[in-house]
Amino acid sequence: MTASWIEVPAGSPFPVHNLPYGVFAPAGAAARCGAAIGDHVVDLSQLPLPHADSFAAASLNGFLGLGRTAWSEVRAALTELLTNPAHQSKVTPHLHPIDEVTLHLPIEVADYVDFYSSEHHAMNVGAMFRPDNPALPPNWKHLPIGYHGRAGTLVVSGTDVVRPSGQRKPPDADQPTFGASRRLDIEAEVAFIVGAPSVLGEPVPTSAFGDHVFGVALLNDWSARDIQAWEYQPLGPFLGKSFATSLSAWIVPLAALESARIPLPHQDPAVLPYLVDDDPWTLDLDLEVRLNGEVVSRPPFSTMYWSPGQQLAHLTANGASLRTGDVYASGTVSGPEVGQRGSLLELSWGGREPLQLPSGRTVTFLEDGDEVTISGWATGAEGVRLGFGPVTGRILPAPLG
Amino acid sequence: MTASWIEVPAGSPFPVHNLPYGVFAPAGAAARCGAAIGDHVVDLSQLPLPHADSFAAASLNGFLGLGRTAWSEVRAALTELLTNPAHQSKVTPHLHPIDEVTLHLPIEVADYVDFYSSEHHAMNVGAMFRPDNPALPPNWKHLPIGYHGRAGTLVVSGTDVVRPSGQRKPPDADQPTFGASRRLDIEAEVAFIVGAPSVLGEPVPTSAFGDHVFGVALLNDWSARDIQAWEYQPLGPFLGKSFATSLSAWIVPLAALESARIPLPHQDPAVLPYLVDDDPWTLDLDLEVRLNGEVVSRPPFSTMYWSPGQQLAHLTANGASLRTGDVYASGTVSGPEVGQRGSLLELSWGGREPLQLPSGRTVTFLEDGDEVTISGWATGAEGVRLGFGPVTGRILPAPLG
Repeated sequence: MTASWIEVPAGSPFPVHNLPYGVFAPAGAAARCGAAIGDHVVDLSQLPLPHADSFAAASLNGFLGLGRTAWSEVRAALTELLTNPAHQSKVTPHLHPIDEVTLHLPIEVADYVDFYSSEHHAMNVGAMFRPDNPALPPNWKHLPIGYHGRAGTLVVSGTDVVRPSGQRKPPDADQPTFGASRRLDIEAEVAFIVGAPSVLGEPVPTSAFGDHVFGVALLNDWSARDIQAWEYQPLGPFLGKSFATSLSAWIVPLAALESARIPLPHQDPAVLPYLVDDDPWTLDLDLEVRLNGEVVSRPPFSTMYWSPGQQLAHLTANGASLRTGDVYASGTVSGPEVGQRGSLLELSWGGREPLQLPSGRTVTFLEDGDEVTISGWATGAEGVRLGFGPVTGRILPAPLG
Repeated sequence: MTASWIEVPAGSPFPVHNLPYGVFAPAGAAARCGAAIGDHVVDLSQLPLPHADSFAAASLNGFLGLGRTAWSEVRAALTELLTNPAHQSKVTPHLHPIDEVTLHLPIEVADYVDFYSSEHHAMNVGAMFRPDNPALPPNWKHLPIGYHGRAGTLVVSGTDVVRPSGQRKPPDADQPTFGASRRLDIEAEVAFIVGAPSVLGEPVPTSAFGDHVFGVALLNDWSARDIQAWEYQPLGPFLGKSFATSLSAWIVPLAALESARIPLPHQDPAVLPYLVDDDPWTLDLDLEVRLNGEVVSRPPFSTMYWSPGQQLAHLTANGASLRTGDVYASGTVSGPEVGQRGSLLELSWGGREPLQLPSGRTVTFLEDGDEVTISGWATGAEGVRLGFGPVTGRILPAPLG
């Protein structure tokens, strides 16, 4: 069993098989790139690594833009530094206790796309938002539906989220009113981070996924359901989503997730050729959603209908180019069981069936002061469990209008 | 009458009252910031201007981020340099014939939002896309509908546009097919360029428009109608728009457009308080759309229902923050007359009423090789006509699948 000379506590999300990348600042110092190992962050800008100059920056974009060969070289060299005790004296001065650093947004976000790729989620939302139509739109099984979100309001895990205000019009009201959202929700999602760019006009096939996508993170697509319901027809969600989207501080490289690949569930009808993957795969990745510490859901990513590779091929099928720092998210991860739903909208069935927590709290949507944490686990090499850095956020009251 | 010591040909879009900003590269040299005057570009990085260091960059973002006071200082100083003959010998070495430079995208685009603010356009599209429902959605007169587009595929005027491929499903087909778009269209729009950022969680009121928005440009939101029609429900346009969006090379500063302000047409019903502007204004700005040189439409921006200030207030009402380089576009500008429609979809009524051009060409949607140019004019100080730099693009065939 591969092990680090650094002590990694049992059950740590960050064994040496993981080595997720992030951006951190030691107390009183500038932000730079690091990797998580056990209870520490190692300062990549200070280690004898290939491409070391790319790590003395407040975002991972420089490193991500170098491409797949560079990603492999750095991961191999970092693994050697952290597993071979011969390097201990060189590395130790550059270890920081993870509790003593500030974590920053790990990337400068280029474009942010959000998909809608859980059939269970789409069925649930369709039934609630469009009760007079079939729950699944006619295009849903032919293409991974997606839309662009606001890149500028992606925030790092731990950032407080101000309750948004906006126009709402309940079905029984004559006119819309403006005020603080009363149906503030979460969406538990998995995000894919693009490293290497592509050329405008040239689609990226499913087979080139690994040449462009660097890694995986967790994402909470905060959603104001009342604002969204009134605004979203005909051009899609806008202010109901754009106030904040939280991203985990750590990006798990794809290279750490090879053992977590599993076959994609069967797709029927057959997909069009540009969405075919010779070896269709997804990730066996289990999410957990906690509200003020109490578990409210355990969404399984393995149940998603569309794969990350198909999403990328679709996103670029029209020739749209990729940039370093593009983020695309899976859409809410909801499994077939009630306790696997990735949003409060679904868990409380539109607020009509409040969720009972063990503490006695009855939950429909988020209250001021609520803190939501989404975490995730997958199996890495040698059967070791790998954790994703959590994505967490607390709701602050809307400012007085 | 204010005049420049530089000879400005009669009818030039760029008299000294205009002074739009852009990014250009002289032959064999690096890109830097410039301003257009007559048939020349003046190299701002070489002039004795306040904040001159911000101009030695391949985008205007550094200058735009300095904010309103800096914008005013530079405009005043530049006007002095170009109108007082005492400065002629200093400035002349830094004038480049506009035909001899390469124009670049003037900004690094942060987020791109597209509105849908022409009532005539919304009525026309609604009638065609949703014939079984009221043409205007129920929310349309309560809020300026908008959505996020792909920032990474904004390209500068003059960039060729590759015909996109994608899924299409005609209403009479059983299944979608994949192939080159057969209904490739334009949307003639006006774009507003954000200079000064805002704070996450703090809405920007209509009255603060001028503190954040730097200037105005022209935009062509290329649209593949067949791809759009099949994909856009329920989450909005995605691949039907994301393959390319063309922006004019020149940004006309708001300061040049004071005389072009006119009252906003009456809004009924009354808007909610956060959309109220004490002095609701829009711009008297006339667009012209040419297809291979032949005029196909003259859309009047003055007929738009929602104002630029209302769009900005709406965009940030939920606390979403602005970044330097954010672009928000008006949506297709269509007037009440047939010859004022800003898209071929409307001009040819969904392809059912082909447009007859003077040349004898019959037009429904764009063919390979077609070149579209959108230009625009407004009245500036002293009654002088100001031109917007045109936004032009030519269609290249789809790559062989």
